[in-house]
Amino acid sequence: MAPLADLYQLTMAYGHWRAGRAQAPAAAELFFRRGPFGGVLALAAGLAQGLRCLRAFRFSAADVAYLRSVLPSTTEDAFFDFLATLDASEVPFLQVKGPLLVVQLLETTLLCLVNYASLVATNAARFRLLAGPDVKLMEMGLRRAQGPDGALSASKYSYIGGFDSTSNILAGKLYGIPVRGTVAHSFIMSFTSLEEVQPRELSPLAGGQPVDLVALAVSWLQQVCELLQTPPEKVNQGELAAFVSYAITFPKDFQGLLDTYCVRRSGLPNFCAVALALHQLGYRAIGVRLDSGDLAQQSKEIRQVLRACGARFQVPWFETIPIAVSNDISEQSLEEFCREGSEIDMIGVGTNLVTCPLQPSLGCVYKLVEVNGSPCLKLTEDEEKMTIPGIKMIYRLYDAAGHPFMDLMALEEEASPSAGQELVVHVLGQLDEPSKVMPTTVEPLHRTYFRDGQVCEPLPSLPEVRSHAQVSLSQLSPAHRRLHEPQPYPVALTEKLHHLLTKLQQASQ
Amino acid sequence: MAPLADLYQLTMAYGHWRAGRAQAPAAAELFFRRGPFGGVLALAAGLAQGLRCLRAFRFSAADVAYLRSVLPSTTEDAFFDFLATLDASEVPFLQVKGPLLVVQLLETTLLCLVNYASLVATNAARFRLLAGPDVKLMEMGLRRAQGPDGALSASKYSYIGGFDSTSNILAGKLYGIPVRGTVAHSFIMSFTSLEEVQPRELSPLAGGQPVDLVALAVSWLQQVCELLQTPPEKVNQGELAAFVSYAITFPKDFQGLLDTYCVRRSGLPNFCAVALALHQLGYRAIGVRLDSGDLAQQSKEIRQVLRACGARFQVPWFETIPIAVSNDISEQSLEEFCREGSEIDMIGVGTNLVTCPLQPSLGCVYKLVEVNGSPCLKLTEDEEKMTIPGIKMIYRLYDAAGHPFMDLMALEEEASPSAGQELVVHVLGQLDEPSKVMPTTVEPLHRTYFRDGQVCEPLPSLPEVRSHAQVSLSQLSPAHRRLHEPQPYPVALTEKLHHLLTKLQQASQ
Repeated sequence: MAPLADLYQLTMAYGHWRAGRAQAPAAAELFFRRGPFGGVLALAAGLAQGLRCLRAFRFSAADVAYLRSVLPSTTEDAFFDFLATLDASEVPFLQVKGPLLVVQLLETTLLCLVNYASLVATNAARFRLLAGPDVKLMEMGLRRAQGPDGALSASKYSYIGGFDSTSNILAGKLYGIPVRGTVAHSFIMSFTSLEEVQPRELSPLAGGQPVDLVALAVSWLQQVCELLQTPPEKVNQGELAAFVSYAITFPKDFQGLLDTYCVRRSGLPNFCAVALALHQLGYRAIGVRLDSGDLAQQSKEIRQVLRACGARFQVPWFETIPIAVSNDISEQSLEEFCREGSEIDMIGVGTNLVTCPLQPSLGCVYKLVEVNGSPCLKLTEDEEKMTIPGIKMIYRLYDAAGHPFMDLMALEEEASPSAGQELVVHVLGQLDEPSKVMPTTVEPLHRTYFRDGQVCEPLPSLPEVRSHAQVSLSQLSPAHRRLHEPQPYPVALTEKLHHLLTKLQQASQ
Repeated sequence: MAPLADLYQLTMAYGHWRAGRAQAPAAAELFFRRGPFGGVLALAAGLAQGLRCLRAFRFSAADVAYLRSVLPSTTEDAFFDFLATLDASEVPFLQVKGPLLVVQLLETTLLCLVNYASLVATNAARFRLLAGPDVKLMEMGLRRAQGPDGALSASKYSYIGGFDSTSNILAGKLYGIPVRGTVAHSFIMSFTSLEEVQPRELSPLAGGQPVDLVALAVSWLQQVCELLQTPPEKVNQGELAAFVSYAITFPKDFQGLLDTYCVRRSGLPNFCAVALALHQLGYRAIGVRLDSGDLAQQSKEIRQVLRACGARFQVPWFETIPIAVSNDISEQSLEEFCREGSEIDMIGVGTNLVTCPLQPSLGCVYKLVEVNGSPCLKLTEDEEKMTIPGIKMIYRLYDAAGHPFMDLMALEEEASPSAGQELVVHVLGQLDEPSKVMPTTVEPLHRTYFRDGQVCEPLPSLPEVRSHAQVSLSQLSPAHRRLHEPQPYPVALTEKLHHLLTKLQQASQ
């Protein structure tokens, strides 16, 4: 894992080593300056991966040999010997304290592991907020992610953000995320006529003589076409063959992909015919899927047809057959479904979930805040790029309604703010005007997960992380939770920290 | 590698197997419908990774056990036994021919490997076209990519697209891409005073007594401040300490990161002082870097200062010190540099290269085109989602000036079009109006890289792929190569293929 870093971390490390500062106690913080996607909510993710990398942090002999070939030839041999002895046994995480050289080397690795994880978890949370709690959300971005590992991260962190399942088998196998699959267009297209259906017979659920499901479906199709007033000759025979074949293969899990040909004149009549044939043998179809066109509108038309069939043929469960949709689903699609009304029960999201096109990266940075007991400050012409010096504690302040209303940074040595106590704080963005707040509850946000080279607190399971995230999101006030033009969420400094910042700013000007 | 697929590929595979069609000869094509980023040029990448995955295509016992746990309980045991015997020994690539079940299973995996690879290679090529051939381009997106593997793909395919180097050490180690590193803000910030510089002495390049570089730099700083008319007390001492320390560490590779504090009043005077001190000992500084503010404007101001110092202190090479910039560089930044003029020699691109925010995914799809000798057609209400049936050859047609002007799809059994011969073709988007073209040269685009379970043609090295890509791009006519509103690049069908398409369309309506 060690060489997964930008080269300048190594040149910096050599600089520190040469200057005899390799072991100087140092602290860095990993943070972002602005919430992603224009919102104020963000889920922080990537801790477990980061810990795994800390535990494995070593330069192998091959790593050292490679570094020797790319660092300037003036680099001393003893530095490479030193690298081979390194491990991360003296460093914690997110707030990272330890020897300067190791704190430096971890920058890119940790950013790489936390940035995308948090971004896609937050993106998933936004989809969940828009979809509401009842619609099933499936992640299906494998083919659009940044390669296999990008896709696996997308599956894992989308699940944490509130998705119910993934299409990615490997993610299911590795992480235990529920996997779901439907029917592919290519399967439908691979059939052209009913002669290809093989085997053609299916036994009733309750047992008994196998029945020719092809013939049964064909006879149901007549009745369905009559009911729907659609010409039987417009029904695609290959599609019917594919549906029957799939139904014989998965009699308890039959579902129809409706839009390989015309939904109304072919896909839907074929589905209903096969589902009714199955019903006659005691089986229930489990769903339909749409992958093109106006999804909300079609879902309503499909529901009508399912209702009509259910009523006409006395199959009450027919009208509740779940309708799944996919096809470039975005936040905007979900807002449209909501506005127009829809009968959609399940939504598959791929590209717009995993690539986060509204903001394809989270701007997490990793900045040194203290070296050798002295707080550090980065003060550039870009005021946005300024850092807050010193090793800090962060507290989340809650109001009487249980909503968090402010995150407060304090110096490590300050006493924790107390619930019910008035505090003078300086809010980032308007630092010069102190304001007063009184929290009903105070929650310290930092926990130590890694110390002395060991993970020192058990990591929660994926479902636990997922439910923690949902609980945290539900605590946000509606004004902070809304996705468009949310009320800004203030981050503030204590008076003492503000004083330190001002002092250092003056000193370096 | 086998379970890196969407679950529905497995349910489809079971469907095929149950229907006795697992071994039916089938063909699929992997293609995109629209060039990325609004351009018509695109680099296809991901072949080597795809081949690696084909060679490794197997379901392990653990894979099969997992699949058994997620597929419906009605799935027959014999299917799982069959899965365990599968390999891809009967399948080629991009055009994929082989047993139906294997062709189906490969869909998501191949899409995952080709989509991002091609997207980021194309994105890199666009940056190269905008930057021109002389500016050095460095990829530095590790911290913003979709995790470690996304970052490695970004480094590899950016290099193919025309970048010169990467910051990612692991990419250098694994793929042999040149790695580059500069100086980090955190390194500068970790120093607060000159007392921290340790060791303080450096021997002249030609040998001789070590010199106190701190004292030497301080005395040069006086002269530089005088020349630049900037107050010495505004110069940050920590920054000067960091520069001196870095210079002692890397005397032959000294470079300055100028914007930790004020560029004009601190970073630049400090850099010049240390570089002049080094010069006195026989060493040359190798560059400066800027990471904030108006980069083009500052580069010009810096060049002026470097020129002034070079002239005043009679150090001619000073004025050619390379200026590197970074900070959220996008295509638009490069266009601005060009418009405003700049003195930039090297550009580091991270986020906007690896996340491709202009279009964060390439819409490659993978569609069945033939099963059991019968061409397949997907004909939906979305005309865009239609497929072109049949196993095809693709030819690139060149005009007399050597520019490609059309890609032509023909049925496999058709004879290759001949150079200098008039052809009747049907262009996608206006299929009903045949048109005539006469190519000066005809290039068949398909080559077979995988057959009988083996890679059957040697794969080019990364530098070979990179130069092939640059040659291909240079052959494009200026109208096709331009990035904004390029002339559309026509893709056409032969008369015979058009006839097949029309026949199948009529048959399925």
